[in-house]
Amino acid sequence: MKKQIPYKIYLSEKELPKKWLNIRAFMGNKPAPLLNPATQKPMTEAELSTVFCSELVRQELDETTPYIEIPQKIRDFYKMYRPAPLVRAYCLEKALGTPAKIYYKFEGNNTSGSHKLNSAIAQAYYAKKQGLKGVTTETGAGQWGTALSMACSYFGLDCKVFMVKCSYEQKPFRREVMRTYGANVTPSPSNLTNVGRKILEEFPGTTGSLGCAISEAVEVAVSSYGYRYVLGSVLNQVLLHQSIIGLETKTAMDKYGIKPDVIIGCAGGGSNLGGLIAPFMAEKLQGKENYQMIAVEPASCPSLTRGKYAYDFCDTGKVCPLAKMYTLGSGFIPSANHAGGLRYHGMTTTLSELYHQGLMEARAVEQTEVFKAAEQFARVEGILPAPESSHAIKVAIDEAIKCKETGEERTILFGLTGTGYFDMVAYENFHDGKMTDYIPTDADLQKGFDGIPKINL
Amino acid sequence: MKKQIPYKIYLSEKELPKKWLNIRAFMGNKPAPLLNPATQKPMTEAELSTVFCSELVRQELDETTPYIEIPQKIRDFYKMYRPAPLVRAYCLEKALGTPAKIYYKFEGNNTSGSHKLNSAIAQAYYAKKQGLKGVTTETGAGQWGTALSMACSYFGLDCKVFMVKCSYEQKPFRREVMRTYGANVTPSPSNLTNVGRKILEEFPGTTGSLGCAISEAVEVAVSSYGYRYVLGSVLNQVLLHQSIIGLETKTAMDKYGIKPDVIIGCAGGGSNLGGLIAPFMAEKLQGKENYQMIAVEPASCPSLTRGKYAYDFCDTGKVCPLAKMYTLGSGFIPSANHAGGLRYHGMTTTLSELYHQGLMEARAVEQTEVFKAAEQFARVEGILPAPESSHAIKVAIDEAIKCKETGEERTILFGLTGTGYFDMVAYENFHDGKMTDYIPTDADLQKGFDGIPKINL
Repeated sequence: MKKQIPYKIYLSEKELPKKWLNIRAFMGNKPAPLLNPATQKPMTEAELSTVFCSELVRQELDETTPYIEIPQKIRDFYKMYRPAPLVRAYCLEKALGTPAKIYYKFEGNNTSGSHKLNSAIAQAYYAKKQGLKGVTTETGAGQWGTALSMACSYFGLDCKVFMVKCSYEQKPFRREVMRTYGANVTPSPSNLTNVGRKILEEFPGTTGSLGCAISEAVEVAVSSYGYRYVLGSVLNQVLLHQSIIGLETKTAMDKYGIKPDVIIGCAGGGSNLGGLIAPFMAEKLQGKENYQMIAVEPASCPSLTRGKYAYDFCDTGKVCPLAKMYTLGSGFIPSANHAGGLRYHGMTTTLSELYHQGLMEARAVEQTEVFKAAEQFARVEGILPAPESSHAIKVAIDEAIKCKETGEERTILFGLTGTGYFDMVAYENFHDGKMTDYIPTDADLQKGFDGIPKINL
Repeated sequence: MKKQIPYKIYLSEKELPKKWLNIRAFMGNKPAPLLNPATQKPMTEAELSTVFCSELVRQELDETTPYIEIPQKIRDFYKMYRPAPLVRAYCLEKALGTPAKIYYKFEGNNTSGSHKLNSAIAQAYYAKKQGLKGVTTETGAGQWGTALSMACSYFGLDCKVFMVKCSYEQKPFRREVMRTYGANVTPSPSNLTNVGRKILEEFPGTTGSLGCAISEAVEVAVSSYGYRYVLGSVLNQVLLHQSIIGLETKTAMDKYGIKPDVIIGCAGGGSNLGGLIAPFMAEKLQGKENYQMIAVEPASCPSLTRGKYAYDFCDTGKVCPLAKMYTLGSGFIPSANHAGGLRYHGMTTTLSELYHQGLMEARAVEQTEVFKAAEQFARVEGILPAPESSHAIKVAIDEAIKCKETGEERTILFGLTGTGYFDMVAYENFHDGKMTDYIPTDADLQKGFDGIPKINL
């Protein structure tokens, strides 16, 4: 007899994953290595260690270990807010009148409001273990900055956050949450760094971008004693930590004999989607299953759907290593789209390579449609979603409506990465009809592409 | 062998309570009945039904049924966000170095951000069942208004919310959440009602109070066809619905063989505390156990610790029935304390009577001490608490520190009613050293007492 599936599936504490899953170990063609822009040679462990914590560098470069143990102290912290629920969206299914079965993994039940805490606590742990004084970082929507502030406060580390200016202005209360956790928050671009001053001079009045903020945070980290830079997305180490999302999801689904037909996640730098699909993609790479997987990005910042697969800088200031990824060019500054967490010109190398190999798809969606989906979801499922997460909701609803038309009973899984409690200015614009969509023209994109360096390998 | 207690105890969906607990049925001396101010006779079912939904009136007047079945549709909604976790505060215990064992029941994992949703969905259900077009209400901190908006949206009811002006101004984004759920929000006192206009004339520039907002909402309900008034606290029906908090808590504790020595909750109108203690108080009233119970209120609005036990109006505009309760006088307008949800001049009749009988204690605490406790809690437990809830945190920490001094291993349970994501202005004031405490003088209180009607019974 089939088990009745509850609204929310909570794993017990004992079922919490003890190891992260390293998706690269399952890939035949690995993602291309990070390059030193000066030499165009792969970045060495020593080179990376001037910027990042040593243990995190080892994780970054490890392409072969399939499972990496989660240290006990990190697992103890995870127990404060995990396991996260896997929710059967019964009410959404009913509202849509779809035969599809919709599930979402909800990562918003913690004060950082998103999945970002999964990697923040790991990175803070390794920084503390290395005896550092503190870390620097950038934040877009503010979710990563909040998560890192919480993690640093827990381990007694100093935390300096550069927050993309448009988000800083749209989300004044995010700053206060970070302050509650003792962090130091600066709007980016700022006058505190060489790269910030340079960007401000070139683009006065810029609302900033993740790329700019990364450059500033890196500059401060490498020029301050006892500091390293940490990053909330894009890097392989982050995907590794975020695999806990997918591992919990898979354990919960296996327990009830559920198999997703399609897995959907929003993609800015790729950390949430990379984490959600990890164990499913591992099975796909081993030829065991053939899940459909969809990355959803904003039409205003379409790195996968309209970008180039090329070596590019990870940041606007060009202080970071080169990564081979789908990119709009590190000089591309997206419009002040409200989904701050998705305003990144590139995409993690692992997802880029998987996408390039045709193992996953991508779709770009427009902002106003995303907020319509967000509101519909909030009203029936009782969770007010973050704009970023709502990109996944939009495509999940689209897929469920397709099932209604075809009569297919597909099982849809999507990642609900977080809550929108600090995004109410965006909701207000939406309610007041002041929200606009912006789709860059080919000419707009060409400007970004022109800045992609020519690399001869 | 004793079971290892996890960080979070989640009941399964099957363990969700199927009945609410009616604490009055266990009381020897019942709370005094509501009186009609015109006749000074107990309000009849017919009289109450002009203001409230019929089924809710029956619940309001039912002093004898110990358990009342929760309708299936309400239980289905509960499954969207319940059971709520019972958390063992291992990290807080460690930070305090206390031998006490601290537990909290966390009600903030839903978009309304608090326990208020437990009663909102019940009240919306009965309104819908009665065929009403909509409901009116007041909201202080905005949590009740948000909860009711969510509930009304779920059942397709119109929702008109009068929001205490100081909260409306301090929490602009609350309004947007309510709007996301389709509600209509007006700052109170307003020009929309006779009572609002009268209060504005008498007290120009007033920041409002729950008492004023109640009067306005009642006026609109009784003068609009197909509308009734619903209330988020104070009433017995609300305590009944909120008993789900205590019932879940007790089930979870019993499962692990945990028995609380002291139970602590913040008290504005008393709904959360009344709900949390319900099954424990039932045992105490039956002479089975002798739990210590503490109501925590703000020193700026000390109805239990400094109020009179007397018949008084539930609202400033004197349109509501008279209730026998601990009161500061319906004319008492508390200072613009940030814990909007605790700015009520009275206290639910049930808790008032239990307090009067010496079955529970009360403590008044000052705001800046409350925020210190809130920040300490947030940093170690990873949840940014609502100012209201933080009153309970403050006293729980005080009790745990006492245990440290005496070496007692007491088990402390408190209610963490909600999150503070919409209270960041208050946190900002606290961080900037701009927060002040206000304790009314005896003369201030006397002014309120002078307005308490003289009732000869």
